[in-house]
Amino acid sequence: MQLYPLKLVTVVGESIVMHDIAQRGLKLGASGYTLAEVIGEGSRSARNVGVSGEAKTMKLEFIVPMDVAVKISLHVSTDYFEHYAIMAWMSDVHVVRGQSYYPDSK
Amino acid sequence: MQLYPLKLVTVVGESIVMHDIAQRGLKLGASGYTLAEVIGEGSRSARNVGVSGEAKTMKLEFIVPMDVAVKISLHVSTDYFEHYAIMAWMSDVHVVRGQSYYPDSK
Amino acid sequence: MQLYPLKLVTVVGESIVMHDIAQRGLKLGASGYTLAEVIGEGSRSARNVGVSGEAKTMKLEFIVPMDVAVKISLHVSTDYFEHYAIMAWMSDVHVVRGQSYYPDSK
Repeated sequence: MQLYPLKLVTVVGESIVMHDIAQRGLKLGASGYTLAEVIGEGSRSARNVGVSGEAKTMKLEFIVPMDVAVKISLHVSTDYFEHYAIMAWMSDVHVVRGQSYYPDSK
Repeated sequence: MQLYPLKLVTVVGESIVMHDIAQRGLKLGASGYTLAEVIGEGSRSARNVGVSGEAKTMKLEFIVPMDVAVKISLHVSTDYFEHYAIMAWMSDVHVVRGQSYYPDSK
Repeated sequence: MQLYPLKLVTVVGESIVMHDIAQRGLKLGASGYTLAEVIGEGSRSARNVGVSGEAKTMKLEFIVPMDVAVKISLHVSTDYFEHYAIMAWMSDVHVVRGQSYYPDSK
């Protein structure tokens, strides 16, 4: 068993744009993603979109090398932050036998 | 693009109290949360609540500064651990353009 | 309030085997798990299973000490990686009053 240090990039936001961000993530070098429905409430959604209270949103996750994590984060912040209630963060993970999550090995 | 070090606080437990904890989290300084249905099985649920096998539970997440993470964790452990099958943990994340997740900027 | 350093082990893969891995995790020392439906797309699923596009999968999470995290990861990589579209990773968490998540205290 081998452990590879990679980044978990999480994007939470309005369902309407999350499939697009997922596909863009693949083009930016991610080898996969997961997408799940969540209930969300936040100051960004209330302020930017006029939603008050809980709203259905989606949570998107990628496991990627740092350079791809930066590309995805830049894409999300540049193209979506101004007009959509979206947030994104990254954290450190160790992937078990993670070779296939490097774009070189796709 | 900027990255801010914050805490991801995760609370997993019985659906009946999770909306209350979410609202309390906002009052304690969180600027938002996500809430998702999960299936859960654990020794705490089996021991404390008489549930055996899998039970529907909810997973609640906040992205907050350390001081708010501590307040939420204290609230959950003080008010819920004795009588509910609930667990909570925190981990480190780096939020992309995270300014709005500081309570000062709400 | 006390914080205990533990591992979050996440396994994402085809629904058909995820309940089995969850039960095996309990036998290997985990005191509980959560399981959630997600949508997944990835090179592993496309390559190994012939699925193209998004497929329903499940996300399984355990909070465990390092030795149990290694056992679960070894089990998943040894018994599932060759024939199933599954990935697994671990990350660091701090559990609030985490005593009950050590197998000794079950």
